[in-house]
Order: sequence, then structure tokens, then C-alpha cells
Amino acid sequence: MFDHVKVVGRGRVGAAVAARLAQRARLASDGDDPDLVLLCVPDRAIREVAAAVPPGPWLAHVSGAVPLSALSPHERRFGVHPLQTFNRSGRADQLDGAWAAVTGETDGAHARGRWLAATLGLRPFDLQEDRRVIYHAGATVASNFLVTLFRVARELVQKAGVPPDALLPLMRRTMENGFELTGPIARGDWATVEAHLAAIRAEAPELEDLYRAMARATRP
Amino acid sequence: MFDHVKVVGRGRVGAAVAARLAQRARLASDGDDPDLVLLCVPDRAIREVAAAVPPGPWLAHVSGAVPLSALSPHERRFGVHPLQTFNRSGRADQLDGAWAAVTGETDGAHARGRWLAATLGLRPFDLQEDRRVIYHAGATVASNFLVTLFRVARELVQKAGVPPDALLPLMRRTMENGFELTGPIARGDWATVEAHLAAIRAEAPELEDLYRAMARATRP
Repeated sequence: MFDHVKVVGRGRVGAAVAARLAQRARLASDGDDPDLVLLCVPDRAIREVAAAVPPGPWLAHVSGAVPLSALSPHERRFGVHPLQTFNRSGRADQLDGAWAAVTGETDGAHARGRWLAATLGLRPFDLQEDRRVIYHAGATVASNFLVTLFRVARELVQKAGVPPDALLPLMRRTMENGFELTGPIARGDWATVEAHLAAIRAEAPELEDLYRAMARATRP
Repeated sequence: MFDHVKVVGRGRVGAAVAARLAQRARLASDGDDPDLVLLCVPDRAIREVAAAVPPGPWLAHVSGAVPLSALSPHERRFGVHPLQTFNRSGRADQLDGAWAAVTGETDGAHARGRWLAATLGLRPFDLQEDRRVIYHAGATVASNFLVTLFRVARELVQKAGVPPDALLPLMRRTMENGFELTGPIARGDWATVEAHLAAIRAEAPELEDLYRAMARATRP
């Protein structure tokens, strides 16, 4: 659908996206007239960068949080948000296996978003524009709060002199087992939960609210 | 160190442990005189089952939460807690790659615990008995609350019509990338966090406390 995709921004996502488009021979070179300008700039810069793009090509962004209206005044526009976390390697294979939220205001825009996702090696799903915030909240819980969960668990086991790496096989297997709940809360063992809370109050009181909120949400 | 290990209990952990000991030709058969009795019974049953074991052999349990004193009146005792979640398959290979907390009140007990862990295919680390609760709290955060985290993220993305499986590559990569924080909080993008909170308040108000506690703990 697009032959010359110009990627603006070479951060974590932009570098991987540009590398993949180069592999697919769809990355615009200097001098090419782009038929799609893909903004991979920080969320806060999208509005300003979009406004500076000369009219003509389609415009798209890769943000989870930013509405398509930020791409105004361009009207031929869509969004492809890779549901993935990226490192700074710039490697295209970071895209492999990940899904992507495709947003668009017309059928043609959706079709172009799905094409771009597939070209990048992503598995597209359609996202309604008015569902963007709750979707992005879920993505943040799954990824960013997973980081926090590990940090909290690490802090607690380190207070017991336990190497934090010991948590990794446990966390991997929890995922591999389809997130089946085992452990004290699954067994209704509230005495153990209360003992945890007492120990946390004594040794890491700033974590009590978090433990309590998570335990409450874990209850069957 | 032990030739005939009698495993009491064939739940998730007991079945895997017995299968591994059978592979290692250390599982006591009926009629064998066990030199170690290993309790793989529910936490709440340990005290009673231990009291009913005739004196003579060493006694051990595989619990994370229960103190060694629950094995009284036996004094030759230790604990090996596999830091892992188990399914009901009974497969021994569930032990592979996992770590294990070894507790004991004497050097001899610790040495026997490390021997058992290694025989099971676990990587042992020593845990002080008085550090057991904070250690177990950390393990619960890492595993049980990871289940909760996934359920919460799933609930949110499902409200957006997004397939929950789309979260899995994201969560796996978050781990593979060493739990490096990306996303809105890493960028200091509090407007996006506030938008998430507003959407959660409107659509899943019971999750607001949890999101708030996690976001607070995520802040750099």
C-alpha cells in the first residue's frame, strides 16, 4: 500500500521500525517522495511535528496514548501502536511476535494501518479511538507495573538475603502456566497473608498499601 | 546423604518431587525404612502429620511459610522450599531451573537441605529461619500478584475489545529486557497517568486503588 515510508524519530521504537522497513525495502531514502510519514517521536512532540509535515502523504503515529486528532490538520491518518517494550538496540526483531493496536477513522485508514502492522511483522487488532485510554491503561499495567512488581519482590527477598535472580524462574513459570493462581491466597490462607503484612509493616512500610491492594484484588 | 526418601503427600509439589526422587533412585518404596520423611502436605496439615511420624528418620517440609518448629517433636529437621509454581501434571521437570530456600537450625541440617535441593534439580540458597516471612512475602508478590496483574490488565484491555493474548509478548519481553521501565511513568508523563485513572474510575472503579498504589511505587 505504501512504497516509501518516511520514519521521523529514531528512538527505541523508531529505530526498530526503520530497520524493519529497510528490510522490507519500504523505507524512504533521502530524496524519495514519501507516501506515508510515520511519526516515531515522543508523545509530547507529535502534535507539533505533525503540523510541520507538508500536506500530501498519509500520516501515522505509533503512540498508545495520543489520539489521532493530534495529527491534524492531516486527515488521511491512522495509528499503529506496537504492544511491546523496546530496548535501545534498534533491532527489527523486537517487533516479531508482538501485537499492534490499529486506529483509524475510516475503513481505508484501518486497512492501511493493518498493512503497516503486518509489514512491520506485528499482529494487528483494531482499536476504537474512544477505547484508546482504557487499552493503554491495561498495557501500562501489564508492562510498567510488572517492572514495579519485580522491584517490590526483589526488595522483599533481598531483605531476607535471597538472590533476586531466584525470582526469575518463578515469574517465567507463572506466565507459562497460564497465570494459574497458587500460593496462600489461592488456598484461602489468610493467616499467612496477615503475617506477610506484619513483616512488611515492620521492614518495608511504604509497600503495605501496595501489598494490601494487590492481595484484595487477588482474592477469588 | 539419604538413600530412602519417603514423600508424604502427592499434591502439585509432592507429585513432582516424588517423580524426581524416583528418577534419582532415592524414593523409598513400601517396606523401605526411610532415612528422610519429606512432608509435601498442605501447610495447615504439617504440624499434625509431623507429630504422627515415628521418631528415627530426618524430617523435612517444602513449605515457604511454615516454620521448622512445626516439625516438632522431631529435632533432626530442615526445610527445602522450591521457589516455583507447580501445575497438576506431576512432572519432575517442573523443578528444573528453579531455586530453593534451604532452612535448618544446624550446619548438618543445612547441608542435608542443600543435598536434597540439588538432588531434586533445584539451586539452593540458605534462608535464615527468622527471614522466612519477608522472603515468602516477596515470593508471593512475584508469583501470585503477577497473576493478579495479568487479570487486571486483561480486564482493562477487554473493555477496549482487545484480545488478552496480545499482552503476553509484552509481558515476556518486559522480563527478557531485565525489567527496564519504559512507558508513560518512565517519561514522567503524568497527564497520561491521570487519563488512565479517569478511565479506570469510569469503567473499573474497583481497580483505582491498585492502579494508584502501583503507579506511586513505579515513580523513579
